[in-house]
Amino acid sequence: MSKPRIVILGAGYGGLVTAIRLQKKMRRNEMDVTLVNKHDYHFITTHLHMPAAGTDHHDNARVTISDLIDERKIRFVKSTVRQIVPEEKKIILDESTLDYDYLVIGLGSETETFGIPGMHEYAMSIKSINSVRFIRQHIEYMFAKSKMAPKRKDYLTFVVGGAGFTGTEFVGELADRIPVLCKTYDVDPADVSIYNVEASASALPPGLPEDLILYGMEVMRRKGVQYKLSTAIKECTSEGVILSNGEFIRAGTVVWSGGIRGNSLLQEAGFEVQRGRVKVDSCLRSYSFPEIFITGDCSIVTSPEGAPYPANAQIAVQQGFNAARNLIQTIRSKELKPFIYDFKGTVATLGRGEAVGLLKVKKVKGRLALFIKKMIDARYLFLIGGLPLIWKKMVWKQKSTTRNYHVPN
Amino acid sequence: MSKPRIVILGAGYGGLVTAIRLQKKMRRNEMDVTLVNKHDYHFITTHLHMPAAGTDHHDNARVTISDLIDERKIRFVKSTVRQIVPEEKKIILDESTLDYDYLVIGLGSETETFGIPGMHEYAMSIKSINSVRFIRQHIEYMFAKSKMAPKRKDYLTFVVGGAGFTGTEFVGELADRIPVLCKTYDVDPADVSIYNVEASASALPPGLPEDLILYGMEVMRRKGVQYKLSTAIKECTSEGVILSNGEFIRAGTVVWSGGIRGNSLLQEAGFEVQRGRVKVDSCLRSYSFPEIFITGDCSIVTSPEGAPYPANAQIAVQQGFNAARNLIQTIRSKELKPFIYDFKGTVATLGRGEAVGLLKVKKVKGRLALFIKKMIDARYLFLIGGLPLIWKKMVWKQKSTTRNYHVPN
Repeated sequence: MSKPRIVILGAGYGGLVTAIRLQKKMRRNEMDVTLVNKHDYHFITTHLHMPAAGTDHHDNARVTISDLIDERKIRFVKSTVRQIVPEEKKIILDESTLDYDYLVIGLGSETETFGIPGMHEYAMSIKSINSVRFIRQHIEYMFAKSKMAPKRKDYLTFVVGGAGFTGTEFVGELADRIPVLCKTYDVDPADVSIYNVEASASALPPGLPEDLILYGMEVMRRKGVQYKLSTAIKECTSEGVILSNGEFIRAGTVVWSGGIRGNSLLQEAGFEVQRGRVKVDSCLRSYSFPEIFITGDCSIVTSPEGAPYPANAQIAVQQGFNAARNLIQTIRSKELKPFIYDFKGTVATLGRGEAVGLLKVKKVKGRLALFIKKMIDARYLFLIGGLPLIWKKMVWKQKSTTRNYHVPN
Repeated sequence: MSKPRIVILGAGYGGLVTAIRLQKKMRRNEMDVTLVNKHDYHFITTHLHMPAAGTDHHDNARVTISDLIDERKIRFVKSTVRQIVPEEKKIILDESTLDYDYLVIGLGSETETFGIPGMHEYAMSIKSINSVRFIRQHIEYMFAKSKMAPKRKDYLTFVVGGAGFTGTEFVGELADRIPVLCKTYDVDPADVSIYNVEASASALPPGLPEDLILYGMEVMRRKGVQYKLSTAIKECTSEGVILSNGEFIRAGTVVWSGGIRGNSLLQEAGFEVQRGRVKVDSCLRSYSFPEIFITGDCSIVTSPEGAPYPANAQIAVQQGFNAARNLIQTIRSKELKPFIYDFKGTVATLGRGEAVGLLKVKKVKGRLALFIKKMIDARYLFLIGGLPLIWKKMVWKQKSTTRNYHVPN
């Protein structure tokens, strides 16, 4: 009689793709799908390093959800999830509750600070439209402030903790942004310092071959980035960072990109977690509650050899496809299809005009790598919003990247 | 044998106009003129309320000094004055000293806080390119911050102390800017509050007739400005302001425009001062040192009835004309011409599309007042830089008012 109720928590890569694929594949009246998200927009996490540095407008990193889903087919609820109660198949939202028969959890990640004192309090992190808008303004504020107190060189000192994927892409953009800010604020570029601090022995995303890493670091150094490798941040204070080698860097800006953990709601709901993430079965389901699918940064999927895959957008999108398919199969009482991660490669940008990457086994760098990166971005935009979205976010975006001081007439 | 050495301190209205008029009127090799200024640009103080609110780019409020003076005729020294030693006719700069035969002091004003506790520490003021760039960024920073802490309504509360000329013009722009910022930062305009606190019983510049004041206040109220009249700020803290009626307004932004005083270097040099300003003779000269001319906010000139004129750009410009003329007359041993202030009127803008003013005895408001204000601005730009400067700052300015997030290619 009653249709199965599917609730999707989070409109990140995993949740949004699940919703879009369900919308496309489900039959009329086959199921009742509700998508819950804190904001009325989806944001493109892999693009957030640009608005964080101020080299692109944050609107180019988000899409209004109602532009992506058909609200006659999928109900969208803009609300914050307070609690997941798997035993009662119930979700407690800010001002209401939802019952479900099947649940997809795609609630994304939180910042992992590894217990470094002061990191939560004093460092910023690249995780949402709100947070990157804040980082961008904080950086500009420091430039403005430096002109009111010319001796405070710490206002012009920027520390990025973590030289992995996000850290590297952000530092590349920040280094490109500095000359523009120096011009706007009459600041001597020689007074600005950018440090990228990394506990491991190498910068740039892990897994890249040695020669690409050296190439990338050279690109970054030429832009003025100073690396502190094999160096951990021991403590973050209101005045800067204390490093494992005893050095203290006085800095007005500390951005932490050293790690993520799964959304804490999962642990609170009683799931067994590792760094907030839940190990799922071959079909992305919770071992304890098979009606719950978990995607993206909240889930741990292991390779055939048993090693967990790193959390990234690519795997989350593929999980979304798989979860939608298996939800339909479940409802139709058909056999489920296990999730197999198809690693297509990874490309990290190094600011304007430069990137490095590995495609399956092919190494790419420079403009070619950047071109491929743009193709990856375009592919995702096409997937969620078709050609119009590519046009809006990649081609026509010039328009919204200029910010006019004038009140529009 | 040696030419008289004239040193002009400060390239504000008074100093700059003195320099430009000397350049034009002096004979070849008649005198040796040095202009000293802290920055390599002159800023148009009457325009600063716009970049402070973010409704115009700060570059539209400044002009590079080398574009205004002919450095083959006038020597320009970019330096900060540390001390004036009138007894030795010597100026101590940051890294050098200058000797003079005649001195023009046009060092402008400082913020007068009337001893209100915390005002110097926690309030910002509209006084320079650096300070307004800081205010603009501070305002945006508060918007960005409010999205990271949605309960902190104080981040979206703006208090402007003083509803005179600068306070009113700034509040008008700020009220226009708020809707744009709300859109950029996804903030509900209902969450934003603007208070204009004024100790006297009336808002808007003193001297305006009652009906214009009522008209202007109504314009401002429609934009969302809340007036607190006959209310003094008793104390400014890191969290807001305490008013004389006992009320506490929690606010992340406090801008103080309640008063100015003359540059403290004059008092330090031993001049007899009233609020840092020096009473000058009918030819703008110091009574104790007749080789020193004092212009603008550092000087007190009284009306024939003995009342001091208010410090503003109009009087400073006229003083510049008079000082230049009298310097030449002095050097040529001719009779000096007393300074007579020709009050042409005053127009205060109330944000976009609105202004109120008094021209001699004619009242103006609305678009007419705004047009006259623009004519006053244009007249000044023409005076210091001719038609090219009007073009650059008033006509073609669209170009520099857009700030592109992208690093230029």
